[in-house]
Amino acid sequence: MNRPITAPRAAYDRYFDTAWDRAWFSNGGPLVSEFEKRLSAYLEVEHAVVVCNATLGLSLLIQALELTGEVILPSYTFISSANVLKAAGVKPVHCDIRSADMNIDPEACAALITPRTSAVVATHIWGAPCDTSALQAICDDAGIALVYDAAHAFGVRHQGRPIGGFGRAEVFSLHATKVLQAFEGGVVTTDDGALADRLRLLRNFGFSGVDRVEIAGVNAKMSESHAAMGLANLDMIGETLAANRRRHELYADELAGIAGLRFHQPAPGASSNHHYAVAEIDADIFGLDRDGVVDLLFAENVLARRYFYPGGHRSIPHLPESGAPAALPVTEMVCERVLVLPAGAAIALEDVRAICGLIRSIAAHAPELAARLSDTGASRRRSARPDQVAPPGFSKPRTGSKP
Amino acid sequence: MNRPITAPRAAYDRYFDTAWDRAWFSNGGPLVSEFEKRLSAYLEVEHAVVVCNATLGLSLLIQALELTGEVILPSYTFISSANVLKAAGVKPVHCDIRSADMNIDPEACAALITPRTSAVVATHIWGAPCDTSALQAICDDAGIALVYDAAHAFGVRHQGRPIGGFGRAEVFSLHATKVLQAFEGGVVTTDDGALADRLRLLRNFGFSGVDRVEIAGVNAKMSESHAAMGLANLDMIGETLAANRRRHELYADELAGIAGLRFHQPAPGASSNHHYAVAEIDADIFGLDRDGVVDLLFAENVLARRYFYPGGHRSIPHLPESGAPAALPVTEMVCERVLVLPAGAAIALEDVRAICGLIRSIAAHAPELAARLSDTGASRRRSARPDQVAPPGFSKPRTGSKP
Repeated sequence: MNRPITAPRAAYDRYFDTAWDRAWFSNGGPLVSEFEKRLSAYLEVEHAVVVCNATLGLSLLIQALELTGEVILPSYTFISSANVLKAAGVKPVHCDIRSADMNIDPEACAALITPRTSAVVATHIWGAPCDTSALQAICDDAGIALVYDAAHAFGVRHQGRPIGGFGRAEVFSLHATKVLQAFEGGVVTTDDGALADRLRLLRNFGFSGVDRVEIAGVNAKMSESHAAMGLANLDMIGETLAANRRRHELYADELAGIAGLRFHQPAPGASSNHHYAVAEIDADIFGLDRDGVVDLLFAENVLARRYFYPGGHRSIPHLPESGAPAALPVTEMVCERVLVLPAGAAIALEDVRAICGLIRSIAAHAPELAARLSDTGASRRRSARPDQVAPPGFSKPRTGSKP
Repeated sequence: MNRPITAPRAAYDRYFDTAWDRAWFSNGGPLVSEFEKRLSAYLEVEHAVVVCNATLGLSLLIQALELTGEVILPSYTFISSANVLKAAGVKPVHCDIRSADMNIDPEACAALITPRTSAVVATHIWGAPCDTSALQAICDDAGIALVYDAAHAFGVRHQGRPIGGFGRAEVFSLHATKVLQAFEGGVVTTDDGALADRLRLLRNFGFSGVDRVEIAGVNAKMSESHAAMGLANLDMIGETLAANRRRHELYADELAGIAGLRFHQPAPGASSNHHYAVAEIDADIFGLDRDGVVDLLFAENVLARRYFYPGGHRSIPHLPESGAPAALPVTEMVCERVLVLPAGAAIALEDVRAICGLIRSIAAHAPELAARLSDTGASRRRSARPDQVAPPGFSKPRTGSKP
């Protein structure tokens, strides 16, 4: 959804050239070491363990914490967490969310804890901090680990300090679309030195010395070229967050007052990285459902999307054998309503204005557009590419657009 | 052991600039697609599925083939295979090797098959092809999968075609130290289209469409910057193989006739990528054991190493609960004898000559050097850094040398 936010090429090359000149391209090179120090300082956390991607970061945490049995996570989150739990032989237990911020519902979470539960993996969705105090109390009471999926939350502060130091550990994504990007990458942060040591062993095959393998580690090393991109982008994170904020505020202004559309804002006084532009469409009031809006925007070459649809609990690999997924009413409502819009520092302010203009225009003609979409059979082809469902009067999208 | 073999910076930039200009850095970008097509053509195999590293490539194969129970692999191989099997809940069963080529012994392998065995993962060690015909017959008889760890074997031909098309699938490493390097990376090759489709799903979270997740996949994507390095190096693979061969032939000439030292050569008429310079030291004849030679070379700033020591079956994560590892006599002999020397196109011919001169000098004074090493207590400190064990007359190594 977000175009890569990318430092100037010269800033990237200044770092990468040093790796090229050394011909040291991986295996804990100087750029990875520098990146870890800088991340640890920025996130105000003792240890930042950089890895090749966030999914593998969570996988290392599962190994390091020896998680078994069941792990509770929100259903409304990226599917990788449930997948990697399952691949490690741990059962993902999908929990419902709160409608206010779409984060895991602590009460619902507490109700799902059983003697088989070994951890909770909670996501700071769209960068909004979870109710960390409630979750910590629940997990402490149960004697289980609490870790956070902070993929969305780089640069967010909470209770006076950055996201990164909550729970037993937090996992950030540094994927190309994230607020801090390193092409592909992730970082696991923790104040627990023994855990950090274990993660470092696990990411490099378990080697504690030239010939000594301590534990069954894999390869989760980040390369120097990726660290170079991460460092160059970290150098300008202040500008990135400011640019994100301007775009987010513009969205909020331009989408204000549209009946049936709620644009998500940080809670009053709360910090945000403003990296995601998320709206909810109430079809009954708006006059058109969210999927209709997605189709119409796509036809105008705007890559808006539903997200985390249909929820982890309804995704094929995680359907129970009975075939009937758990009832998670808030997740299901949110799955039907969420509209994610292009955002982040790499999008032009005039594009935000144009997108908002299109949305206002759709809102103004919603009933008529709903009827036309219905005529073209769009609802029956919803899983097909939206370029096949553009109603008359909407131009064809440019081909070859980026994911 | 091998310095990165690296195309000229301009050749790398020609590819990478296209990714930078597109701001398309991952997620199946055009460079990864081109790299896969080129690899598939070069390796004469239907499908080349590029991944972020070879260990994760094998991990995807374990998931794709739904391996369970036990998997047989040589003990004399890189520890990552046993580790990733264990992490996936599969028991690695370590098999002995043949002394002639250090590859898995087909007879020993056949003897280890039980009703719980789901596959054999055989390594083409040092790029020497396994006895593929014998292994295929054994696995076909048992109705189990045969896959190859081809981490060492890029550019090797066997039975009239490249390594890459044998067994059910082969996994190459594209790590910085390999004959074809992409900073970090791997590629899984197969002629089985259904398997390739499954691997492609598994490397991208299982997504078969925007919202549709088929299977519990993870993130094993290669970035465009890594693909750029792979493409630039693939463009010059012919020169690389020729340069490797010149260095290998020089080693063979210069190390000929040293009593107690056997320099490994491809079998007559066999293809090789000549990427590894491997010798075996018979301490009784040479007059000094292999570890002594490693220490003395290190003291002269030559990073020679023992390798795969002490064998997977004796590594901490894979010791049986009884504490007594299986008896694998050939593996154990090889673990005590193998000396891996700096090799590959990135090392200068004069460095090869100088290294061989040092080895000849060590051989000429072996008994005296053995006595001095014994006086300095080297044998008791064998697992410490060799720079602490240099005997008088040997200079200190440069600090900060690359791994």
